[in-house]
Amino acid sequence: MTSKAKPIKKVVLAYSGGLDTSIILKWLHQTYGAEVVTFTADLGQGGEIEPAREKALMLGIKPENIYIEDLREEFVRDYVFPMFRANALYEGVYLLGTSIARPLIAKKQIDIARAVGADAVSHGSTGKGNDQVRYELSYYALEPGIKIIAPWRDWEFKSREDLIAFAEKNQIPIAKDKRGEAPFSVDANLLHSSSEGKVLEDPAVEPPPYVYQRTISPEEAPDKPTVITVGFKKGDAVSVNGNPLSPANLLATLNDYGRDNGIGRLDLVENRYVGMKSRGVYETPGGTILLAAHRAMESITLDRGAMHLKDELMPRYAELIYYGFWFSPEREMLQAAIDKSQEHVEGEVRLKLYKGNATVIGRESPKSLYSSTLVTFEDDKGAYDQKDAAGFIKLNALRLRTLGLRDRKS
Amino acid sequence: MTSKAKPIKKVVLAYSGGLDTSIILKWLHQTYGAEVVTFTADLGQGGEIEPAREKALMLGIKPENIYIEDLREEFVRDYVFPMFRANALYEGVYLLGTSIARPLIAKKQIDIARAVGADAVSHGSTGKGNDQVRYELSYYALEPGIKIIAPWRDWEFKSREDLIAFAEKNQIPIAKDKRGEAPFSVDANLLHSSSEGKVLEDPAVEPPPYVYQRTISPEEAPDKPTVITVGFKKGDAVSVNGNPLSPANLLATLNDYGRDNGIGRLDLVENRYVGMKSRGVYETPGGTILLAAHRAMESITLDRGAMHLKDELMPRYAELIYYGFWFSPEREMLQAAIDKSQEHVEGEVRLKLYKGNATVIGRESPKSLYSSTLVTFEDDKGAYDQKDAAGFIKLNALRLRTLGLRDRKS
Amino acid sequence: MTSKAKPIKKVVLAYSGGLDTSIILKWLHQTYGAEVVTFTADLGQGGEIEPAREKALMLGIKPENIYIEDLREEFVRDYVFPMFRANALYEGVYLLGTSIARPLIAKKQIDIARAVGADAVSHGSTGKGNDQVRYELSYYALEPGIKIIAPWRDWEFKSREDLIAFAEKNQIPIAKDKRGEAPFSVDANLLHSSSEGKVLEDPAVEPPPYVYQRTISPEEAPDKPTVITVGFKKGDAVSVNGNPLSPANLLATLNDYGRDNGIGRLDLVENRYVGMKSRGVYETPGGTILLAAHRAMESITLDRGAMHLKDELMPRYAELIYYGFWFSPEREMLQAAIDKSQEHVEGEVRLKLYKGNATVIGRESPKSLYSSTLVTFEDDKGAYDQKDAAGFIKLNALRLRTLGLRDRKS
Amino acid sequence: MTSKAKPIKKVVLAYSGGLDTSIILKWLHQTYGAEVVTFTADLGQGGEIEPAREKALMLGIKPENIYIEDLREEFVRDYVFPMFRANALYEGVYLLGTSIARPLIAKKQIDIARAVGADAVSHGSTGKGNDQVRYELSYYALEPGIKIIAPWRDWEFKSREDLIAFAEKNQIPIAKDKRGEAPFSVDANLLHSSSEGKVLEDPAVEPPPYVYQRTISPEEAPDKPTVITVGFKKGDAVSVNGNPLSPANLLATLNDYGRDNGIGRLDLVENRYVGMKSRGVYETPGGTILLAAHRAMESITLDRGAMHLKDELMPRYAELIYYGFWFSPEREMLQAAIDKSQEHVEGEVRLKLYKGNATVIGRESPKSLYSSTLVTFEDDKGAYDQKDAAGFIKLNALRLRTLGLRDRKS
Repeated sequence: MTSKAKPIKKVVLAYSGGLDTSIILKWLHQTYGAEVVTFTADLGQGGEIEPAREKALMLGIKPENIYIEDLREEFVRDYVFPMFRANALYEGVYLLGTSIARPLIAKKQIDIARAVGADAVSHGSTGKGNDQVRYELSYYALEPGIKIIAPWRDWEFKSREDLIAFAEKNQIPIAKDKRGEAPFSVDANLLHSSSEGKVLEDPAVEPPPYVYQRTISPEEAPDKPTVITVGFKKGDAVSVNGNPLSPANLLATLNDYGRDNGIGRLDLVENRYVGMKSRGVYETPGGTILLAAHRAMESITLDRGAMHLKDELMPRYAELIYYGFWFSPEREMLQAAIDKSQEHVEGEVRLKLYKGNATVIGRESPKSLYSSTLVTFEDDKGAYDQKDAAGFIKLNALRLRTLGLRDRKS
Repeated sequence: MTSKAKPIKKVVLAYSGGLDTSIILKWLHQTYGAEVVTFTADLGQGGEIEPAREKALMLGIKPENIYIEDLREEFVRDYVFPMFRANALYEGVYLLGTSIARPLIAKKQIDIARAVGADAVSHGSTGKGNDQVRYELSYYALEPGIKIIAPWRDWEFKSREDLIAFAEKNQIPIAKDKRGEAPFSVDANLLHSSSEGKVLEDPAVEPPPYVYQRTISPEEAPDKPTVITVGFKKGDAVSVNGNPLSPANLLATLNDYGRDNGIGRLDLVENRYVGMKSRGVYETPGGTILLAAHRAMESITLDRGAMHLKDELMPRYAELIYYGFWFSPEREMLQAAIDKSQEHVEGEVRLKLYKGNATVIGRESPKSLYSSTLVTFEDDKGAYDQKDAAGFIKLNALRLRTLGLRDRKS
Repeated sequence: MTSKAKPIKKVVLAYSGGLDTSIILKWLHQTYGAEVVTFTADLGQGGEIEPAREKALMLGIKPENIYIEDLREEFVRDYVFPMFRANALYEGVYLLGTSIARPLIAKKQIDIARAVGADAVSHGSTGKGNDQVRYELSYYALEPGIKIIAPWRDWEFKSREDLIAFAEKNQIPIAKDKRGEAPFSVDANLLHSSSEGKVLEDPAVEPPPYVYQRTISPEEAPDKPTVITVGFKKGDAVSVNGNPLSPANLLATLNDYGRDNGIGRLDLVENRYVGMKSRGVYETPGGTILLAAHRAMESITLDRGAMHLKDELMPRYAELIYYGFWFSPEREMLQAAIDKSQEHVEGEVRLKLYKGNATVIGRESPKSLYSSTLVTFEDDKGAYDQKDAAGFIKLNALRLRTLGLRDRKS
Repeated sequence: MTSKAKPIKKVVLAYSGGLDTSIILKWLHQTYGAEVVTFTADLGQGGEIEPAREKALMLGIKPENIYIEDLREEFVRDYVFPMFRANALYEGVYLLGTSIARPLIAKKQIDIARAVGADAVSHGSTGKGNDQVRYELSYYALEPGIKIIAPWRDWEFKSREDLIAFAEKNQIPIAKDKRGEAPFSVDANLLHSSSEGKVLEDPAVEPPPYVYQRTISPEEAPDKPTVITVGFKKGDAVSVNGNPLSPANLLATLNDYGRDNGIGRLDLVENRYVGMKSRGVYETPGGTILLAAHRAMESITLDRGAMHLKDELMPRYAELIYYGFWFSPEREMLQAAIDKSQEHVEGEVRLKLYKGNATVIGRESPKSLYSSTLVTFEDDKGAYDQKDAAGFIKLNALRLRTLGLRDRKS
């Protein structure tokens, strides 16, 4: 399956329009003599994506080789929401905002590669990170014979200066603030923003305030709580405050609420799939609210057996997404199990948002499994016979008693 | 192993000194003609425990049959801390404050039963809850032949009025506010307070403010953050702000910090082991800080393989504790695995406490596995060869590519 | 939900036609004054089921209240085969032959109860075994308000003599060999026969040869091996030696092959759900062959990620079936995951059957993931670049090296 | 951590004395100008190891650089037995005979490298297999800075002819039958022999009889069964037929029994860690008996909770060993859990060995948890109250009934 040294004819590049991927664009062309097809996606990272078209044209890309697509709805509907059905958290706390976007971008690149007859794809991720793995595992899973070019692993540039020199030599416009190295590296989409590197490299030091990009701090947030209601159907959020919203609009709405109330910041040292620990600062305002709401919705609509099984499967599921195995049979198996559990996860959850907190204060559902008749301290009219508990305990204890007897003998 | 209907000679009662267990005390004596031994433990529930002695004497218990013990250090050292090594959360969010106290009380009752030659033990938990299971599984595991009396499951009383009438008839003093039914039921120890029942029975309705007992609300908390440092050794917290503290004192100190900053409230619908859903309101101020700190300490000192395995085992471990299986071989097996991982979990974590938030802002360790040399965006002097990533990805992708080829054929 | 002491009007009894369930039939009628509806199923236990009709009529059951059904195809198609997709083994070795039949019988009883307007169901399992749990959990899951009568737990009979006396008094015919107690207890269906109790109660003693009912011993089996081919489609066996067969016919065919070659005996001490250990002797001739064949079919058609996930989920899945939770959300979730993996499990497996051994000697599939090009020691024409392994190992080792460096320092 | 291109001064080679590692020996010397230290271990692969000394001397190795060690006892005691405590099977059937030997060889090479001041280690495994991973992960875990030379991945030879030419040029003696390529490749140690490649590459074709090396076929085995007894202490086998034996002698004894009775052959398509499927033929005569015996010993001495947890952890544990992560924190965590469970796994198991079958026919233990009093069909004198089962079932069913009620409404 190797394809080394084979000539590349046409390559689909995940192109942001920024300096780095512009350099890659030129470098691909020069190194391989390949026709470059650019793909620029709107995943809700903020900012316009149309300027990428001008930029690509200016760098010599043929108009028909420029692909620009708004993927926000598909991203939230087919990637973010399925993941939230699982209450996925990597290493107990991280909402996987970067991880979940990569498979979709990769899928679109492969779709385009097929459409234009390209034999290769390329991305702008470095050789130290997780994203290269997520992109490339997805490419390979979807198109086993595709050639992959990862310039950061291959090229001869050794420093920022080398890159700038190459850019200048190739008439790639350089924004003033891009001459020097950025104080940290950023990724963003509708689910989150992440920051890492440079000023964040010492995990003993608190992130400087300017790192945060899409949330205000809890301290800056209003002194009055905001109460919202999130509605669910089949495990997915479908409305906010009673207003039905499309997946992307819903997440955007929760993002606004989160940002305004200082919700969703995370400062984390995590374990990368490539083997080292790294420190990241994440902002997931809407996702943080959504996780709390979804768990609360499940708390009254999901059976205990289903919930506990989900909780046990979740760390593996989250690991698979973080490692880049979205398009793998085992992720799909886990998804099938998780989706099976969500049919009746439906109703409304009320949350109080206040200075960094997203606190559940009420849940209601036409499919509720909560029975005040069963649980009440008052007369339950025979719904539950307390004497049953004696037998329940006796049989659960039987093996422990047998064990206790044995262990006393020895 | 059944022992029904056998006469009871001496019974060790978990006795709080309150109205309900006083009624049980009398009822046991009258129903079984048994000598009653009272056991009252200080687990940090707040309030004095010595008054229980007077009360017991007054109810006719012989002085030598009154056991009162301060278990705070043992509770935190041998139960709370081992559990926190696992980052245990039941159903994703609950810190198990009630569950973890029951095995210790049960163990002490059995110790006393052996010391005084009692043939039975008794507790004041109802037949609808989890605590009866936790007590009785522990009793049976530790003393397989013990007889267990669970008055709430067995007695003839049908209402609060019946109980009050019995109390009056037996000269049991009744505090004025205990005549009617409490608006909710409470459990407390050094780790947490819980409230449930009555006014909390509708999960759609926000808990009334008077339910909260050991935390102020985030809204009431100071407008200035408080920064603290928690030190760890072998996975257990050992100091706050550089001051070494015993386990109980440490948890009490974190409780103070938590309470003052509105940290640790939880409003939850959970699944009981006896089969129904119930709604609880929990306050775990110090524990909430401790969990955040412990995870952060692990984030730089624990290997990825160990951490991910811990995360996968955790839901089961938490379930075992919640269900009452502390004294079971499987809990001990999981504990052995967890403890094995904690040897190097050592160092200091800095947290910012602010209006409900316990935010990690720094971690340092002499045993750190975080390597800025490896992770840096700058020149890493060959610590990591980016080209290795290509082979890493290629072999991880091989099975997915084979699969992709197969699936395209079909 | 309790319904104790409520009068019973009509009860659907799982009726074998044998002495014990005939006694139950009469006892139900006399104890509750209830109209009894009998349900007799052919699950391939061997022997005719029509005689049960005569017997029931003779015992006074109205013709319209006698239900007799051949469930063999449904049993294998909807219960046995889904379970075999999971390669389910309880406690590492047991093929769950009894466990898997109970939910189907229970489901049919509930179907009939609805059809005839019965308010109760009844079964002939004792209070010490697993089957009572399997029946009753299934009844309750499918019809939450149903009343359940478990005569063995409730009636006044204390000995075999009592039962015989009751039978005689009620003109229940007693086969000569049923007067005394059977030397062991038997359950059978198309998947297996089990024997337990009495002569088998000492696990140190080898089962006497007469215990075995549907297999000859390896010693008695032919000296020549028999080679067969089992064909699969979507994870289910569909043919033997190239002949397409319905599920029940296929299993019956494999049973014949297994029996004739001494395959499928198991002598086991297992852990019951009700808390004690018991010793069972099982004969699962066709199932033993089927498991070997299915695993072999998966070995070339299932991706590693899917297979390993299946293997990790299997013990839980098997436990759920053994404990009686077939009709539970968590079993259905696991089934969804397992079924998801089986789409391409298709092809043929060749096995050699010889004196107790079912040995795989060949597997072929149009969906094979086995690539001799990849694996060959010979020139692979660049299908696999051995140098990729260096990077693969380096990155997998990175965390271990970091750990090694840390641990040497300490 | 990379060390590419750095000069090598001294290298410790895992040296078998055979043609391939002799070629590596010379190649290392010529390619790196490095001093070569040979390490030859007796792991029970069969044949003498002393001839390796002569061979090494003849190839120019200094006497003090030749290390030869009998590791049989250490191998079985510290690697094989701990693994058998887990009942480890890879992909449901494989006893991991090759996998478990690699970490020990790697550990010894590192020990020697430290003793002689070597800066590199080398092995003779190819770039397509699992063994390179197992060796190198172990090397790196134990000595993070070590340099590793894997000649098969690096050298210029392209064919068998190239190797033979190099050997001839370097006066490496070539046994006549080594001129051509072997019809398959072999690995052996006290636990097993494996064969793969060439004549075995088509998984549809039955292995030719000459592939088998350490077992006779079931057909050739005696017509009379052999009955043996295996004794256990703390989960490890300690005696056969009442005779105490050291670990290696015990395994050798079971190997003899297995070989003579045609036990332990396995023909398998498995998933390699490097990503492809491969077909292997394994012979694990003693190990197959040992697994059956160990499970049987556990069946009466291990609590259900411990056993089921072990079964759930096992696939992961086996995967870790197969993948080469013996020296990893997660394997050690699992080992701690497993070992914790084995304290009382003690007693004797009787097995009947007959033509490929190792059938358990009896188990006895002073620590038995099996209670015929509890399980009996006869009068149990009140050991178990069947009425307890009603409550047990009622509470286990409660959530399912609640669910059933909900689902009927919708």
